[in-house]
Amino acid sequence: MRFEAQVEVTHLPGVLDPQGATVERALPALGYTNVSCVRIGKSIRLVVDAPDAEAAAAQVDEMCHRLLANPVIEAFTVEVVALQEA
Amino acid sequence: MRFEAQVEVTHLPGVLDPQGATVERALPALGYTNVSCVRIGKSIRLVVDAPDAEAAAAQVDEMCHRLLANPVIEAFTVEVVALQEA
Repeated sequence: MRFEAQVEVTHLPGVLDPQGATVERALPALGYTNVSCVRIGKSIRLVVDAPDAEAAAAQVDEMCHRLLANPVIEAFTVEVVALQEA
Repeated sequence: MRFEAQVEVTHLPGVLDPQGATVERALPALGYTNVSCVRIGKSIRLVVDAPDAEAAAAQVDEMCHRLLANPVIEAFTVEVVALQEA
């Protein structure tokens, strides 16, 4: 069965986020003075073939630890939904 | 009132995603042969001060068009949730 996984990779608290800081500094120049706490991470979507949702989520979690995220400086959340078979 | 917005920026269909393609090519070498359709986009979280959720969502949508995303090659979704005041 096929599952779509959505992974959100964010910086751990305390880790510098230069991309977010740059955007936050740019927004007031465009007139947006009411925005704060801008943080920019990665959003990864993929399709995985697995017997059930638990197995799919466990595999994606392992993939995050090994390749998709850097657990030393990044946190991640995994969401898995079943795809309708065509 | 303060709202947290989560923006997911993805490539439009048909736009090349070299980062996703690279990850997809790397996964089989780690033993993950059941993964496909890897796409990597951005996840942006920010806090916005607005009178209500509709105003917050409208402002974030406008910010995406002007700065956070490139509408020519990227799609985006905006989700807004109210923050509990301390």
